[in-house]
Amino acid sequence: MSDRMIEDLAEDECLRLISPGGIGRIAFHSRFGLAVLPVNYRLHEGAILFRTAEHSSIDEDLQTGIARAEYEVAFQIDEFDSAGRHGWSVLIHGPAHRVESQAEREAAERAGVEPWPTGTRELFVRIVPSRITGRRIRPA
Amino acid sequence: MSDRMIEDLAEDECLRLISPGGIGRIAFHSRFGLAVLPVNYRLHEGAILFRTAEHSSIDEDLQTGIARAEYEVAFQIDEFDSAGRHGWSVLIHGPAHRVESQAEREAAERAGVEPWPTGTRELFVRIVPSRITGRRIRPA
Repeated sequence: MSDRMIEDLAEDECLRLISPGGIGRIAFHSRFGLAVLPVNYRLHEGAILFRTAEHSSIDEDLQTGIARAEYEVAFQIDEFDSAGRHGWSVLIHGPAHRVESQAEREAAERAGVEPWPTGTRELFVRIVPSRITGRRIRPA
Repeated sequence: MSDRMIEDLAEDECLRLISPGGIGRIAFHSRFGLAVLPVNYRLHEGAILFRTAEHSSIDEDLQTGIARAEYEVAFQIDEFDSAGRHGWSVLIHGPAHRVESQAEREAAERAGVEPWPTGTRELFVRIVPSRITGRRIRPA
């Protein structure tokens, strides 16, 4: 097995890598402990945007959390070659907010933020990054 | 856009889906808040096994945590089609332990647990699931 190394990524490189959008994972506290759930996100005006619907008690805990004023979450995006031999991972920290205004919701829709499953209590969520870090794994 | 639905997955179906191993993500508390890092895992005797090396302060926080007696983490694995239109996600909760004995380390090596990057303070880690949940997203 050949050696591989980690290199840290600068913030602008992280933003470039995640700019196409796609599947990301939101991490938050649930009644069962740490929860990590995939969502379909877009990067819009420097913020992570996604839509979520309530399906289980884990989704309920996420929605309850986001309703709070300061709700710190983590958001993770990665991409690897099929064998996992090289790739990158970006980790974002920041508060999650409900997208409230009609104008903002329309902007989110124009950004192409598709909901995952259809369901009740659908919510538009924005995460404004307060810290962006990333790493790339590659052959040494 | 066509509707999609979520279905919950039974525990044995979750284990079947994650049994090939590959890239999973460990979620834990770091000095920066929730952290989510990809690792190359195998499923071995019902437990998640991976190797990790210390690269940054986030890895250091993970290793410090795992050195504690009861260190609860979450581990997440998912797979989606390229457009993210359908797929599945499995979420595991449980305590993370260092694999200590030489016999266990050899078993882990035989299970094909490759380290990610080479580095200092390499550690074999085992997560024994206390809770396994999963969901599948598919066209309604």
